[in-house]
Amino acid sequence: MTERMAMRAADEATPALMVDLRTLDRNISGMAEFARRAGVQLRPHAKTHKTAEGARRQIDAGARGLCVATVGEAESFADAGFSDLFIAYPLFADQARARRLAALAERTRLRVGVDSPEGATALGRAASSSPFQVLVEIDCGHHRSGVIPAAAAAVADAASRAGLEVIGVFTFPGHGYGPSMPARAARDEAAALEEATTRLEAAGHAVAVRSGGSTPTARHAVSDVVTELRPGVYIFNDAQQVALGTCPPQDVALSARSTVVSAPVPGRIVVDAGSKVLGADRPAWVPGHGLLRDVAEATITSLSEHHGVVAVAAGRPAPRVGDIVQVIPNHVCTAVNLVDELIVTSCGAVVDRWRVRARGRNA
Amino acid sequence: MTERMAMRAADEATPALMVDLRTLDRNISGMAEFARRAGVQLRPHAKTHKTAEGARRQIDAGARGLCVATVGEAESFADAGFSDLFIAYPLFADQARARRLAALAERTRLRVGVDSPEGATALGRAASSSPFQVLVEIDCGHHRSGVIPAAAAAVADAASRAGLEVIGVFTFPGHGYGPSMPARAARDEAAALEEATTRLEAAGHAVAVRSGGSTPTARHAVSDVVTELRPGVYIFNDAQQVALGTCPPQDVALSARSTVVSAPVPGRIVVDAGSKVLGADRPAWVPGHGLLRDVAEATITSLSEHHGVVAVAAGRPAPRVGDIVQVIPNHVCTAVNLVDELIVTSCGAVVDRWRVRARGRNA
Repeated sequence: MTERMAMRAADEATPALMVDLRTLDRNISGMAEFARRAGVQLRPHAKTHKTAEGARRQIDAGARGLCVATVGEAESFADAGFSDLFIAYPLFADQARARRLAALAERTRLRVGVDSPEGATALGRAASSSPFQVLVEIDCGHHRSGVIPAAAAAVADAASRAGLEVIGVFTFPGHGYGPSMPARAARDEAAALEEATTRLEAAGHAVAVRSGGSTPTARHAVSDVVTELRPGVYIFNDAQQVALGTCPPQDVALSARSTVVSAPVPGRIVVDAGSKVLGADRPAWVPGHGLLRDVAEATITSLSEHHGVVAVAAGRPAPRVGDIVQVIPNHVCTAVNLVDELIVTSCGAVVDRWRVRARGRNA
Repeated sequence: MTERMAMRAADEATPALMVDLRTLDRNISGMAEFARRAGVQLRPHAKTHKTAEGARRQIDAGARGLCVATVGEAESFADAGFSDLFIAYPLFADQARARRLAALAERTRLRVGVDSPEGATALGRAASSSPFQVLVEIDCGHHRSGVIPAAAAAVADAASRAGLEVIGVFTFPGHGYGPSMPARAARDEAAALEEATTRLEAAGHAVAVRSGGSTPTARHAVSDVVTELRPGVYIFNDAQQVALGTCPPQDVALSARSTVVSAPVPGRIVVDAGSKVLGADRPAWVPGHGLLRDVAEATITSLSEHHGVVAVAAGRPAPRVGDIVQVIPNHVCTAVNLVDELIVTSCGAVVDRWRVRARGRNA
């Protein structure tokens, strides 16, 4: 620990994203233990934390590899020494991206998503020098990317023709992000993966991997179908997960340390955490633009870039100008992507700083 | 121009934020010319572009100085040689921030916002070694920070007692961000600044500066009240400004170059520009999560971190997997803050790369 790190959390400039290490470690070990008992592989989505330190702790707790969203994230984690990577995304490999994928495949155990014949053909160019495996993306109800199960075999056939090794199917049950939706989305996930498997096997493809999962659906996953889970948010949790009932507020490991900068009228305060540190995600079912820890009956009613406007219920004690408050972001993945480092604390002391090494690695 | 820069825009990896230099220069000169004719000072908000190159062009076109939102942004622009800075924000100066403000005041002509007696007292600590000027923030209808005009004199009195030089008042007419709202918000701005001026003068404070403005309200500003305008977005414009009628789409100088990665069912395509490059701002009055240039009757119906889901009207030609499309972000300030550099183009060639030097400088 350097002298620079041996500081009090109370000395950090606001706004800043602070991680409580004990809560984070409890979240990591809890999900690892769940996956072990369920008999499924755990492949955490590293887009959430984008740090080598977070990934190392996940692997040490039993995760088999990492999931990422982009070639740039894969490069960042490969540079940090992680060698089992799944880019769970239907990449389109133009020539430059094909070269980068081939270079990654030379130094890692690489898997990539595919959901179209055109995408498969382009990926084939990348795999001609250094082979890698692909999984066909299935839409289980989120209606984003991914084909319906009935169309999976055509994609797998195109991938085989392009020289790619098809090893399975994957899906993201993103429609589980809604009140009362996680259990249903997990059932949809299992049904879609099962039907796609049947289709692929009928077309002569072996299906070794059926990959699913997300933080809200993971513990509802049907483990005799799903062989691998890819939750991301669980390492920190966030206000969305609290609203979904995935976790209680005390299981949220990250919050934005913020200063009350304005209290212009009774019942309204303004904090210096805005959308440039919290992110702007705000589903209708989340009660506000973030959650204030330790302030009762307070709602973040709007965010500007550097302002969080808070309504405090009449008659409740409101924080005063200069006070420090902790804000839990609605969606931690987009919050972390806004900062260069996470300030890691334990018992009020800053014990480490983790570089958000894959921040902004969108391409 | 280095060899690395002498590239075709078509060779850039997606997603990436691309700036059309001629449109940007037209936007800069247009606002500068408007301010000159109206007889008001122009102090562009540099939080939008966060680049030295953008700021230099604004100053060269006649802007008198820069507006910023945070001490970190002020430090970044001071490091780049800009010496007339207004932090238009009700800063709360703890000891560390007071030291940083004092250091800034030593090397720049610094102005800072204040909207509470507590904030004024704290700022006074910073100003004791290197004096700087303050403006009292007024709420003209946006209901964020800023006091009502009737409360302005109490804040100014506290600032004077703290040893600060009060030179005027400022407001942000943010309620102008709504259909048919810009002209009304500009009138509210003038009325609030005028009343606050009367109150301050009655209390013995000289009011040399009445600062207002935002991109949608700037051209409606009442210039016999307002002495200074602080628009930010106009340098690029964005989908919000198009929806408000502030500018036509051809005046938008920045868009996200994106690849179509998936076309899983007729009528739906997915591009690789998601909320981690476009930002997640989505007011109800904006038609989607960004605007697709050159694709008729297409709506971005949802964003994930790395997916933009696009609905294409039946019977219209849809882009195919592998095609390149340009996406205009809803709110350019939050998009720019997500990337490390802007790729500057002219006539299809990459002519420069501007480092987003104040990216993430939230504190």
